[in-house]
Amino acid sequence: MPESTHPTTVAGTHPFEAGLERRAANYVPLTPISLLARAAASFGARIAVIDGDRRLTYAQLDARCRRLASALARRGIGRLDTVAILASNIPEMVEAHFGVPMLGAVLNPLNTRLDPATIAFSLRHGGAKVFLVEAIHRELAARALAELPEPPLVVTIGGEGVADAVPYEALLDEGDPAAAWPGPEDEWQSLCLLYTSGTTGDPKGAVYSHRGAYLQALGNAVTFGLSGESVYLWTLPMFHCSGWSYPWACVAAGATQVCLRRVEPAEIFRLIAEHGVTHLCGAPIVLSMIAHAPIHERRAFEQTVRCAVGGAAPSSTIIRTMEELGFRVTHLYGATESYGPATACLAQPDWAELTQTQRYERMARQGVPLATLDAVMVADLETGAPLEKDGTRIGEIRLRGNTIMKGYLGNPSATERTLADGWYATGDLGVWHPDGAVEIKDRAKDIIISGGENISSLEVEEVLLRHPAVMLAAVVARPDETWGETPCAFLEAKPGAALPSTQELTAFCRERMARFKVPKTVVFGPLPKTSTGKIQKFVLRERARELR
Amino acid sequence: MPESTHPTTVAGTHPFEAGLERRAANYVPLTPISLLARAAASFGARIAVIDGDRRLTYAQLDARCRRLASALARRGIGRLDTVAILASNIPEMVEAHFGVPMLGAVLNPLNTRLDPATIAFSLRHGGAKVFLVEAIHRELAARALAELPEPPLVVTIGGEGVADAVPYEALLDEGDPAAAWPGPEDEWQSLCLLYTSGTTGDPKGAVYSHRGAYLQALGNAVTFGLSGESVYLWTLPMFHCSGWSYPWACVAAGATQVCLRRVEPAEIFRLIAEHGVTHLCGAPIVLSMIAHAPIHERRAFEQTVRCAVGGAAPSSTIIRTMEELGFRVTHLYGATESYGPATACLAQPDWAELTQTQRYERMARQGVPLATLDAVMVADLETGAPLEKDGTRIGEIRLRGNTIMKGYLGNPSATERTLADGWYATGDLGVWHPDGAVEIKDRAKDIIISGGENISSLEVEEVLLRHPAVMLAAVVARPDETWGETPCAFLEAKPGAALPSTQELTAFCRERMARFKVPKTVVFGPLPKTSTGKIQKFVLRERARELR
Repeated sequence: MPESTHPTTVAGTHPFEAGLERRAANYVPLTPISLLARAAASFGARIAVIDGDRRLTYAQLDARCRRLASALARRGIGRLDTVAILASNIPEMVEAHFGVPMLGAVLNPLNTRLDPATIAFSLRHGGAKVFLVEAIHRELAARALAELPEPPLVVTIGGEGVADAVPYEALLDEGDPAAAWPGPEDEWQSLCLLYTSGTTGDPKGAVYSHRGAYLQALGNAVTFGLSGESVYLWTLPMFHCSGWSYPWACVAAGATQVCLRRVEPAEIFRLIAEHGVTHLCGAPIVLSMIAHAPIHERRAFEQTVRCAVGGAAPSSTIIRTMEELGFRVTHLYGATESYGPATACLAQPDWAELTQTQRYERMARQGVPLATLDAVMVADLETGAPLEKDGTRIGEIRLRGNTIMKGYLGNPSATERTLADGWYATGDLGVWHPDGAVEIKDRAKDIIISGGENISSLEVEEVLLRHPAVMLAAVVARPDETWGETPCAFLEAKPGAALPSTQELTAFCRERMARFKVPKTVVFGPLPKTSTGKIQKFVLRERARELR
Repeated sequence: MPESTHPTTVAGTHPFEAGLERRAANYVPLTPISLLARAAASFGARIAVIDGDRRLTYAQLDARCRRLASALARRGIGRLDTVAILASNIPEMVEAHFGVPMLGAVLNPLNTRLDPATIAFSLRHGGAKVFLVEAIHRELAARALAELPEPPLVVTIGGEGVADAVPYEALLDEGDPAAAWPGPEDEWQSLCLLYTSGTTGDPKGAVYSHRGAYLQALGNAVTFGLSGESVYLWTLPMFHCSGWSYPWACVAAGATQVCLRRVEPAEIFRLIAEHGVTHLCGAPIVLSMIAHAPIHERRAFEQTVRCAVGGAAPSSTIIRTMEELGFRVTHLYGATESYGPATACLAQPDWAELTQTQRYERMARQGVPLATLDAVMVADLETGAPLEKDGTRIGEIRLRGNTIMKGYLGNPSATERTLADGWYATGDLGVWHPDGAVEIKDRAKDIIISGGENISSLEVEEVLLRHPAVMLAAVVARPDETWGETPCAFLEAKPGAALPSTQELTAFCRERMARFKVPKTVVFGPLPKTSTGKIQKFVLRERARELR
């Protein structure tokens, strides 16, 4: 190119790299905090949060978060200090997701369903300097605090608190509603700490970055269709993966968040009808509750409610009932390690040609990456190489991208094991379909091997759930001298349903699956669940072993 | 915190910074290219691009882009090499927006309405090594190439090309449809080069980064509600700010893009009806064309078409007509320097209480930042400090964030001038309203100062456009011995409308504005426009000076 017109360059510097450096005008660290500042400056009068009769506009939410940040700063809390919170889905939980990171500190939301010892473990391990406690959880908090040699500053939200606690509103009064926030120095800076409720061993603390939370917020908004007209209902606990990053996603879209303290069908239907709720998320149990709500607890509504479900695949019965009630179900898949949803079961062109039953089967897949996740793959269990997309071979589901956690706090070996070889190893086993969707076949430890054949417990459960009397199903391996293992089904019946005989259930299963997959043992009764509503299969495996 | 449970740390390293470094599993440079890879892997059978009878699925689009990238690589094109393209809104234009950055090269889309000398300037200044030319623009390309001492590799798209050119499809045949792409080493790497069509002086080449384009794609998708079910019609030239970053935004959302070679109302209505178009963008002239389309060229459609308009505020007449026809208009504001849209006039809560006329006035504002822009402000013209949000004081509109260009290629002084003090100085003058929306009052040079009073030419134009006979209006300053300047209106009448007398128009204006703002001179006739459809006010200022 002619020298006369081409940009002059410093020796060795390419024209596309000279004089085009990052500067304040064109480079800002990615952080979800900026989304709130933008929302407050752009549509400050819009309702950000609804909680009963209470309303917070975006301007008010922003001011309260700035108060929280500056009040904590005045009490000596700063960059990378940990602020734990034990609360239901209340406005203060949303505020903590912005106010704490505003001062560069790290928010540690705690599961209100855990026992005091585990709460105490998290407070110690995370090094909490402040502990925000909703009054209704004060006993749990007090018992956890009793185990700590050096208790943190305790702040009580709403009502009577633990001894010596500072009331949250008094703390806010110490702050400045217009305080400037430093934000992160670097977008990789730590933002949140989420302890996973593992079935064995100590909990592991997944660490989120400002960059990851910002991108997950946008990814959720794009994938789930959040907009300024959306109304999001908090049926998902906000302490669970920081509410799948929805506190930030809703603010990115300028949506309204509706708080919900207790997940009860009547209240869910009332809020949907009264506030025009358009979106909600939850575990399968939430959908199950909505789908099985007694008629007198239901309310009619005109809008379609988009309903994202994660944790386990929704059964075809649930999907059908939900659609009939005016919901549109999307199955998501993710983990604490992936800021919540990593994949979504998005519609494929060939769904149009499927029967309803076939479509429901497809909808139960874990699906494809959100726009902000780089990739998903199913890895060969021996080599780690991607399997072919044949829909049959089983491997480990792996995820990669900016919305994967930084690692586990103070646990380099677990971090290394989990994030090795360029991928996050989920530990879930699945197949990769030709259309790109992944489908979980089982957790590694949940595979039942009977007579040399692999049996997916999920597959058997899906069939059992189709039986009209069955509400919940869990299938585990029962040791067997002849076959090695056989499938053993633990079932919870629908309220008021007549219990079928084992013979009847066996016949039901034989019509719908290969004979070797049919449960040899069936037990009815309430199923043991974790604090987050997951069925505790390890308890059931124990029970199965002890069955005579 | 107790040492016993707190993570062990290297001396001086904070627990939240130890062992939590970026790694391949959780850090990927942001680039719009990843969005195509994800789309192809996730819903490869979905239609990505429609062009007449032609359809490209996402898998096909991805394969063609990989072919393009690898074929160019085999011909020696690599990181930061420039690939220019002169084409209408055809599939190959979409392909270039992915295929060229795939190999780390820089795409330089050129305006097909420019003259050969300006095209030649861009090719020289940008250092183009490859020049992709759509056959219908071969004469323009040939004349530009004739001015270059060392012509680049010329590739012709569709039909007869310039002498010695390689056919595009033959080039693609040289490539590998499954080639891995290196992508950017760093997300700040340059991605696109867009020359601004300044009214004076040489064009300036705004440089985009992979990071900026990725974020702008997500910001567009969230703000404008793009989803996997969206169908986007290309009424906006793709060479204009890389189509406002919509080639990337549509792929981020998994939407379908419908090509359009010529912007004609009959064709627009046909495509909307036949393909279920849900979104389109364009300059006011596009809306004007749709709104004024003769009845026989219109087609009925059931969906609502979201229509983003930028470049100048849409008049209330246009908005009303568009709404009646089934469109929903959103006014956007941005520049080449901001990857297209930077702000959008989003609905505010108080709009519900406004009359229709008041609402249309509000909708004509430039609005508030997209979610992915950090901030907008109106700066005091003397101090540069933010003005109060009083809706009256006029200052310069400034923008800041990751979706602001890296700078101008080889023009450090212009870069410095434009991106100084932490903000991108747009050169547009406006006010900041209490609700956070900015509103342009004038380009700095378009302010008319008459008798010491500032007159916004836009304000006068808005009134003139309400007159039933007026289709386009441009008001400029005319030198005047008494008043310094007076407003002079150049008007283009609606086809078939009876021209009003100057007296009648003056009376019309006097009823609707302060007397000093009423144009003293009125001239009817076709208005001069730039290649992108902007009215050339500098030509009109010349004419106004020469009026006797």
